[in-house]
Amino acid sequence: MPRPPSPGGTASGTASGTASGTASGDGVTLRTDAIRRHDPNLRALTSDNFSGAHPEVLAALHLANGGHQPAYGADSYTADLDGVFRRHFGPHAQVFPVFNGPGANVVALQAVTDRWGAVVCTQEAHLNEDEGGAPEHIGGLKLLGLPSRDGKLTRESVGEAVRAAGDMHSAAPQALSLAQSTELGTCYTVEELRDLTAHAHAHGLAVHLDGARLANAAVSLGVPLAACTADVGIDVLSFGGTKNGLLFGECVVVLDDSRVRGVPHLRKRSTHLASKMRFLSVQFEALLAGDLWRRNAAHANAMAGRLSVLLSRSAGVAVSRPVEANAVFVTLPREVLTRLLDRYTFYVHDEETGEVRLMCSFDTTEEDVDAFAAAVAREAARS
Amino acid sequence: MPRPPSPGGTASGTASGTASGTASGDGVTLRTDAIRRHDPNLRALTSDNFSGAHPEVLAALHLANGGHQPAYGADSYTADLDGVFRRHFGPHAQVFPVFNGPGANVVALQAVTDRWGAVVCTQEAHLNEDEGGAPEHIGGLKLLGLPSRDGKLTRESVGEAVRAAGDMHSAAPQALSLAQSTELGTCYTVEELRDLTAHAHAHGLAVHLDGARLANAAVSLGVPLAACTADVGIDVLSFGGTKNGLLFGECVVVLDDSRVRGVPHLRKRSTHLASKMRFLSVQFEALLAGDLWRRNAAHANAMAGRLSVLLSRSAGVAVSRPVEANAVFVTLPREVLTRLLDRYTFYVHDEETGEVRLMCSFDTTEEDVDAFAAAVAREAARS
Amino acid sequence: MPRPPSPGGTASGTASGTASGTASGDGVTLRTDAIRRHDPNLRALTSDNFSGAHPEVLAALHLANGGHQPAYGADSYTADLDGVFRRHFGPHAQVFPVFNGPGANVVALQAVTDRWGAVVCTQEAHLNEDEGGAPEHIGGLKLLGLPSRDGKLTRESVGEAVRAAGDMHSAAPQALSLAQSTELGTCYTVEELRDLTAHAHAHGLAVHLDGARLANAAVSLGVPLAACTADVGIDVLSFGGTKNGLLFGECVVVLDDSRVRGVPHLRKRSTHLASKMRFLSVQFEALLAGDLWRRNAAHANAMAGRLSVLLSRSAGVAVSRPVEANAVFVTLPREVLTRLLDRYTFYVHDEETGEVRLMCSFDTTEEDVDAFAAAVAREAARS
Amino acid sequence: MPRPPSPGGTASGTASGTASGTASGDGVTLRTDAIRRHDPNLRALTSDNFSGAHPEVLAALHLANGGHQPAYGADSYTADLDGVFRRHFGPHAQVFPVFNGPGANVVALQAVTDRWGAVVCTQEAHLNEDEGGAPEHIGGLKLLGLPSRDGKLTRESVGEAVRAAGDMHSAAPQALSLAQSTELGTCYTVEELRDLTAHAHAHGLAVHLDGARLANAAVSLGVPLAACTADVGIDVLSFGGTKNGLLFGECVVVLDDSRVRGVPHLRKRSTHLASKMRFLSVQFEALLAGDLWRRNAAHANAMAGRLSVLLSRSAGVAVSRPVEANAVFVTLPREVLTRLLDRYTFYVHDEETGEVRLMCSFDTTEEDVDAFAAAVAREAARS
Repeated sequence: MPRPPSPGGTASGTASGTASGTASGDGVTLRTDAIRRHDPNLRALTSDNFSGAHPEVLAALHLANGGHQPAYGADSYTADLDGVFRRHFGPHAQVFPVFNGPGANVVALQAVTDRWGAVVCTQEAHLNEDEGGAPEHIGGLKLLGLPSRDGKLTRESVGEAVRAAGDMHSAAPQALSLAQSTELGTCYTVEELRDLTAHAHAHGLAVHLDGARLANAAVSLGVPLAACTADVGIDVLSFGGTKNGLLFGECVVVLDDSRVRGVPHLRKRSTHLASKMRFLSVQFEALLAGDLWRRNAAHANAMAGRLSVLLSRSAGVAVSRPVEANAVFVTLPREVLTRLLDRYTFYVHDEETGEVRLMCSFDTTEEDVDAFAAAVAREAARS
Repeated sequence: MPRPPSPGGTASGTASGTASGTASGDGVTLRTDAIRRHDPNLRALTSDNFSGAHPEVLAALHLANGGHQPAYGADSYTADLDGVFRRHFGPHAQVFPVFNGPGANVVALQAVTDRWGAVVCTQEAHLNEDEGGAPEHIGGLKLLGLPSRDGKLTRESVGEAVRAAGDMHSAAPQALSLAQSTELGTCYTVEELRDLTAHAHAHGLAVHLDGARLANAAVSLGVPLAACTADVGIDVLSFGGTKNGLLFGECVVVLDDSRVRGVPHLRKRSTHLASKMRFLSVQFEALLAGDLWRRNAAHANAMAGRLSVLLSRSAGVAVSRPVEANAVFVTLPREVLTRLLDRYTFYVHDEETGEVRLMCSFDTTEEDVDAFAAAVAREAARS
Repeated sequence: MPRPPSPGGTASGTASGTASGTASGDGVTLRTDAIRRHDPNLRALTSDNFSGAHPEVLAALHLANGGHQPAYGADSYTADLDGVFRRHFGPHAQVFPVFNGPGANVVALQAVTDRWGAVVCTQEAHLNEDEGGAPEHIGGLKLLGLPSRDGKLTRESVGEAVRAAGDMHSAAPQALSLAQSTELGTCYTVEELRDLTAHAHAHGLAVHLDGARLANAAVSLGVPLAACTADVGIDVLSFGGTKNGLLFGECVVVLDDSRVRGVPHLRKRSTHLASKMRFLSVQFEALLAGDLWRRNAAHANAMAGRLSVLLSRSAGVAVSRPVEANAVFVTLPREVLTRLLDRYTFYVHDEETGEVRLMCSFDTTEEDVDAFAAAVAREAARS
Repeated sequence: MPRPPSPGGTASGTASGTASGTASGDGVTLRTDAIRRHDPNLRALTSDNFSGAHPEVLAALHLANGGHQPAYGADSYTADLDGVFRRHFGPHAQVFPVFNGPGANVVALQAVTDRWGAVVCTQEAHLNEDEGGAPEHIGGLKLLGLPSRDGKLTRESVGEAVRAAGDMHSAAPQALSLAQSTELGTCYTVEELRDLTAHAHAHGLAVHLDGARLANAAVSLGVPLAACTADVGIDVLSFGGTKNGLLFGECVVVLDDSRVRGVPHLRKRSTHLASKMRFLSVQFEALLAGDLWRRNAAHANAMAGRLSVLLSRSAGVAVSRPVEANAVFVTLPREVLTRLLDRYTFYVHDEETGEVRLMCSFDTTEEDVDAFAAAVAREAARS
């Protein structure tokens, strides 16, 4: 997927310079030599990692700050993190915070494969296309990227890849990696997940879920987090925080440790063991102890729904994929696309068809959505 | 080095439970579902990553929060980070924030070696002993760990390892990695660094500096940061933030790009490209835009000095290594050590000799130091 | 591609037990405690590595045996191997013998990529499908397998993959790997190769040729070996010996060292530096000093041509791909295929269409070919 | 260890050119375009891989040649290789031929370690010093090289390294790798091996034996091969053939598969699965079906014994290490060493002390030994 070369923003507004020495936001006034370099009132529809952190997450950092706590996960915040997750993922969940999604994926996949294993995923999986070759580089993993329909694998498409498992000449498929929600904004149903994990397990493969946007998927499906993870047989999960309001942070969550080995060692060896881990753990506590995870995801999903409805009213604009999480894919007429790109930043998913990806975040406002839809409507009307 | 199994703290005080829902610290009152789980008034002398974040660093996070900013380093905070660093490291510095020290080391060392290269370091280098095999695992790097005197290499000890550089049968030494300050609390002088880099360059090796505690070293030497890095010929630097008051964050700093290749690609491929990078960059701005880096380091060093003076007054207690940064190594009589370990947590560096490591941080107080020294004195008097 | 589970052979003949203690073959009678365990008169059409070694190659081993020669390539046979190859590959060729094809490919591809590079190849490339994940495991290489027409890439299909070269988020395409002849028995024309290498070089990619069957291709094209390698801009070559009559052995041949780095180090580090290298080198001398390479390849190609002509006469049997080297792909009616598999061993390339691969070797005889074609004809007539 | 830059040989004799087209050696006259490039009557004391192949081994190649045999180990020679080895290594041995020693070591060590494991060995282990970083590069293995006495580890020295096994911060020691005979020409006694394997197993480590010269050690100890491998608890063995009379070839021998996993996959993935494997297997059959392994090793050992006796008679020449296999280490006066290096090629083990290594092979003659000893005596008398 091409990526935007320049910073994006909505049409109006300018970055307001803020004097060095004091930070004034969320009711906080504190000294710092850093200076504000951006306008906190500008938002884009480019990516859910263009957004910042939710204020409750920043508040949690204050809570965990001060005094000394043992490093490398022996702190009091990490000590109870399993407990926090188990309320959502069942009594067997074991949680290992890491810095980011590629780190979580690389640790999790190494933990479910032998040195000679391969991982079945979709061609467009983040793992396969957007992690710079990290799984191959760090894990020596062979990725078997399969073509997919709307970002989702099926028992049929997976079956083809699993067939070679016993063959010494090919890398042995040992894990199936699925994304929920997918890179194309779709969600597996609970039944689809159950069927795929049963199929994978029957062939001896473990199942990994890349849940960078798992909260959006669960909210979209209207089910608890366990319903599309532990309850359907997922073995190990990359649980995303960054895209749902954290500064950064992802967790490797072991749901069934019978197929998962060595996570603590692999996290360290893959350079993802944070020394001051309390600052990772408390962010996840802020997300999951109450319902912040759900509030953020539900809002982002709602904004995507609103956006798709509004856009579909413009002539020549077509919503091109099911809107099942916080992403909206639409095809735009050539000239509309060109003119919009002068003022907005977003990903062009398919240059040929004019399909673009618009992504809503926890802090996307109705005004952001309406303004963008109006701009599209204006350009479409001009064409 | 053995590590403490349990949380540590100074003798008195108890963890004060704080109600969920509000964080009250540093004048901030904000909502969160996380709860305070530790006593912010308890501090240990175990490690400088047992401390939390400096309030000015937290303030900077507020400053950079809100609104949307391009991800993966295209934000406005990262855009000027080179400028912030160049004031300290000269006009050629290029800065690449990463999540932690092992990440910085692995990226930097891959950038100065070919696939067939080896890295010369000390046996006790963090790289060699405390990163879980990450350099070998991620970079395929062969580490040539040399014995050292007080944690420092010399032209003589390095010479031995460099001699084999042209031999196909051994991995080719292509980089020399030094730590400043060292794992044993000592500092290379400017002259020693200049001599070593000249020697390495003469044999075709690049020089990497592991500067997890570079600020402490520069303050101890009384020189600017450039004086012990760019000015003496260091090619690439891991600049530490975590141990000097950040939540987390380290930077790969390229000082002379004639021997350094591919850092942007290697950072991504080694899973250390942060999506919301503004939150890494602004922490470094808080540290380096003014003199926070120096204030924090100077304080920690001063506390170490005070501690070593006080401890050396106790009978049977000997400061065992030069105190040149924020670490104090002392040998304790067996029974003193045993009784102290009942109440304090610290690293026993050498079980045989009873040598322990005590580490001061930016937030270590005179009271912390005096209380510990008094405890040692009491135990020593009992013996 | 599915592989035959059991040894194969032509219809008639039985393994002749040979007394332990003497080997009688090729006019040689020598003592050994090993015993003959197979019938040297039985041959199959399964693979060109089912055949043994050409007698002239065994003779060369005798020639190089006896006395002492420096190890690891400093021997007199390896000393002149560059000279032997330069008669075929031009005055700049540098030769590095290795044990087998995957070894050659892994060494060559590491030598034309940085740690952050990716390699463009076909999906069905041996590299991608049949080397057990070695490129990923040893080189950390990301392979970008593209769909192909008859095993061949084109400027158009490659163009798509090259486009992402500057993007930090994906592994950077740095090499194009082509097979000549291809896995599907086809050959690139000289013009096609020249066009592809020009395209690759224009985008900054080096070009590797997997020449496991290069001799067959050159003979088929009626050109010298240089004409489809050095003369069209190939940078580095895996030159195959095993399938063309050696016991084992492949060479990494550097044709243009401006894009190739570190082969001696990479060969050692990838465990392909033979200690008694004279026994690899002299096999290649036997192959290339005269015209053995050409005789063997021409014979195998001729047998494939004869086979395809004979098979195409049977009703319901269709030659499914151009026969341009020593492989014949044909589709067989279901029941014919089933009955043939009772008596012969060969690869079923596509279970669905009944397409099978038949491979001729330097020692395939007209009788072998005729007998198999007759068997197919009989079965086809029964259907 | 420094390596000789130039080909070596005994004093007299010149390379006899042999006409291209016929090989005449061992009673064989066969056609080849290769030409003889060395004098088969010249031998050195440089290394046991300077020697060629034993004639019985070449004879075995003829025996296995001709006709077709399934590739990749499905041939009739490999089929019974387990049987051949079990006569020597007990009823549970499983054999996997590979091309060379580094290949065997890398495959074997990957099979006894997890991705997060480390391997304990001596500093001077071939694995650590002479394989170009292959274990790190291919296996991502961390090697913990310990100082040793005469090349041998002890329960005491190993104990130190094993202590850290449970620590996440260091790579976890999971295998102990020993060499028999050692790089310094010494042999572990059966009791020493049993003690070390018991110690390793008690701490959860598997034990690998690098048996590049295992035959020499067993002959020296006067025990069967099993007595110093399977019977003392070795889990996996690299069994050497090249240094004992093969062209090339080594075997990974699994002796106790309870601690060894995935060898077939790892062999393929590490590029050591030979396609025409019959030519590896039959060489080992020639070695082990009768007593060729023992004859060759006994002869080499006897020559080393003779050499050490003769050399020790010269003034100023001292045998510096126990001569327990086929290597002799002696210290020579400076001027004697300098003059000998003008005419002979051998390894100088220690430049400072004038210690050199002399290595006898299966084809070393009494005349070779006596001539060298006489030359030393002459030079020593001149001094």
